[in-house]
Amino acid sequence: MNIILLSGGSGKRLWPLSNDIRSKQFIKLFQREDGSYESMVQRVYRQIQEVDGQASVTIATSRTQVSAIHNQLGEAVGISIEPCRRDTFPAIALACSYLHDEKGIGPEEAVVICPVDPYVDRDYFEALRELALLSVQGNANLALLGIEPSYPSEKYGYIIPEHAGPVSPVKTYREKPDQKTAKEYIGQGALWNGGVFACRLGYVLKKAQEQTGFTRYKDLYERYETLPKISFDYAVAERENRIQVMRFGGQWKDLGTWNTLTEEMSEPVIGQAMQNENCENVSIVNELNVPILCMGLKNVIISAGPDGILVSDREQSSYIKPFVDQIEQRVMFAEKSWGSFAIKDVEEESLTIKVTLNSGHGMNYHSHENRDEVWTVISGTGRAVIDGEARTVKSGDVIRMPAGCRHTIYAQTELKLIEVQMGSEISVHDKKKYPLPDVPNDMSQP
Amino acid sequence: MNIILLSGGSGKRLWPLSNDIRSKQFIKLFQREDGSYESMVQRVYRQIQEVDGQASVTIATSRTQVSAIHNQLGEAVGISIEPCRRDTFPAIALACSYLHDEKGIGPEEAVVICPVDPYVDRDYFEALRELALLSVQGNANLALLGIEPSYPSEKYGYIIPEHAGPVSPVKTYREKPDQKTAKEYIGQGALWNGGVFACRLGYVLKKAQEQTGFTRYKDLYERYETLPKISFDYAVAERENRIQVMRFGGQWKDLGTWNTLTEEMSEPVIGQAMQNENCENVSIVNELNVPILCMGLKNVIISAGPDGILVSDREQSSYIKPFVDQIEQRVMFAEKSWGSFAIKDVEEESLTIKVTLNSGHGMNYHSHENRDEVWTVISGTGRAVIDGEARTVKSGDVIRMPAGCRHTIYAQTELKLIEVQMGSEISVHDKKKYPLPDVPNDMSQP
Repeated sequence: MNIILLSGGSGKRLWPLSNDIRSKQFIKLFQREDGSYESMVQRVYRQIQEVDGQASVTIATSRTQVSAIHNQLGEAVGISIEPCRRDTFPAIALACSYLHDEKGIGPEEAVVICPVDPYVDRDYFEALRELALLSVQGNANLALLGIEPSYPSEKYGYIIPEHAGPVSPVKTYREKPDQKTAKEYIGQGALWNGGVFACRLGYVLKKAQEQTGFTRYKDLYERYETLPKISFDYAVAERENRIQVMRFGGQWKDLGTWNTLTEEMSEPVIGQAMQNENCENVSIVNELNVPILCMGLKNVIISAGPDGILVSDREQSSYIKPFVDQIEQRVMFAEKSWGSFAIKDVEEESLTIKVTLNSGHGMNYHSHENRDEVWTVISGTGRAVIDGEARTVKSGDVIRMPAGCRHTIYAQTELKLIEVQMGSEISVHDKKKYPLPDVPNDMSQP
Repeated sequence: MNIILLSGGSGKRLWPLSNDIRSKQFIKLFQREDGSYESMVQRVYRQIQEVDGQASVTIATSRTQVSAIHNQLGEAVGISIEPCRRDTFPAIALACSYLHDEKGIGPEEAVVICPVDPYVDRDYFEALRELALLSVQGNANLALLGIEPSYPSEKYGYIIPEHAGPVSPVKTYREKPDQKTAKEYIGQGALWNGGVFACRLGYVLKKAQEQTGFTRYKDLYERYETLPKISFDYAVAERENRIQVMRFGGQWKDLGTWNTLTEEMSEPVIGQAMQNENCENVSIVNELNVPILCMGLKNVIISAGPDGILVSDREQSSYIKPFVDQIEQRVMFAEKSWGSFAIKDVEEESLTIKVTLNSGHGMNYHSHENRDEVWTVISGTGRAVIDGEARTVKSGDVIRMPAGCRHTIYAQTELKLIEVQMGSEISVHDKKKYPLPDVPNDMSQP
């Protein structure tokens, strides 16, 4: 199975754990059997591989997510990088051309396209495999997955099938309705449109040619900015007559808000927290390393992370976005392809950061114009290159890098260091990258 | 006026802002006219000086509070250090002997004794001055301040006066009653016992002689551990026949819980926070440097600091102590006589701390047996002594101190540094102090 997972944007709806560079699909909230936690993207990736060990997975996303994807899924996953944000049609066209041109997938092969963040079970991915088979049987150009509605939701578009069989031609589509209209649709056998499609790869490429003039990956990538902002539904699905919908009655949940998300947590509390006996229906996600004490709270969600603290009535947690938009704040934590960083202290003319480099990874070779830096290695071993000179580093070592000094560090084992940045104009944009000079060691760039 | 302020214990009732070493009276919650914040102890000290610029103030407390007192009040304030915790009678006896033997106060002079943490206005301290005068007029051995009750409280003892005049002989005392009984007492003209006494200094010394066998400061201090745990009320006031009570009808509040404390905050929010329009009666004290977002909360108190986060129904915030007692946590922030420290990162074999030295202060000259340390100075200027060698330090300087290395630093201007401690057995007890060696500079020990 060829599957394209659409990995969406910055998602402030799950602030403070999602931020401008960490989308909700990367927050580790779901308990694995071994007790550890996995993110939405890790859960979906694992489920796909459990259903189809041979599946070729490509994630369609923006550049900002690449580091987090590699950090969480490893290097084997395919990534189609959107140079800027357009809507789903350009994103899908680009990803399909990537599969064709870069991965060598033939135009007759089926491809399944779906969002990266539904909360589903194994049967969903079994349904996707069936949907892929259906899409190449020749009875239709496009096959949709229709989710059997569990309530008259106003959040989803609806698909009206011709009949109630497991696979039916599509009669028509309906936009997100009000609750009353949703009830009528459901009375007519309507299904939720979960944004899941399957078709031959060549079908998307043909649509791309018709609507953008390009089918080659290189062309679509380079001219991506000029492509129209249009959804796959509008651009393709709603104009297609040879289209089928396959019913899906299994679990399918959109965990886009703290309210829906916390309902699916197997335990009401992740992280350090205590509640007195007068608390009821309280969910807590605490990524800080200090405890949260709750007294007499009812129907409250608390989420605490390096970027801030949310304390919300359960139902009102769906409406945080306009408030979070007002918060102008430095990103305090980020996953990178090589590991992660966490800001530990902010002063007017200094910034203290903990850097964690995963084993076998290193950062770019770079310098800063307007700040001095000091590294104190607190655990692990590795190699550093400072102004062209390589050296071994280990816990306890201190490296001073005045402004202009070129530097990088590579972790042989997981390596943690405290970085103190000092200067009157500390900025993430003050960074010049260089190719790594020839040094006699194993400093491969990640 | 000679005034002894009794500064009580660790006060977990205001967790997370109070902890084992920071008592509630040191939390800066009260807005000054210039917009900055002062603590209870600073507020009371300022009020005393506004009423009586000549007042001699002595704080009776344990060793753990000495650093915070000097940090908040300066070096001029007198401190009577209790070698261990006994009850108020030994504490008052020790402080009075300190006034007599160390400060040269004569036995005929009046002394006023009161808790450090009532929330009061200027008129309270004017009343204390009158109480002091009353106590040396010869009509009684002991003068009490009786607070006019504002409601039938179950939290206070009651004083029943002979009559309703401004000054009356005491008829009797009553223990903390239930609400119904409290109403009856109030019907009889009873006053709250706020633990405020005035008498001649020699009176307390005489009682100390009678009950402990000692009156000299040195003796009381050295044998403090052997003294009985007994309150001044039981040991002295309730056995005294020549005793008067002076009525006080001004503001007097005991801000011992988050509920009572937040009521007196001039603004419902201290620190970074946002609330949506559906929040009602929410108080927030946020000492962290990230925002708190509140959605749809009613009658809730939130307090966040380096030690943890409290989210509590307003009324239930009075009952946090047993829960806080269960939290075993490293103290993440502390005020010292020379400044403060804040733990920024904790790893298995390292600890990262921000140290702030106040201008003109330095730490002890010391070494650690089982850990290496690295200082990165992030602001300010000063002098360091490392293994006997003095050097000037400024922002950007890095100093490495392997285990065993003797070190100290003295701030010429306010000086901040990031200290990284590394070792497998990091402990606050791993510290050896030394006298500062002769070095040609201005490194005076604080």
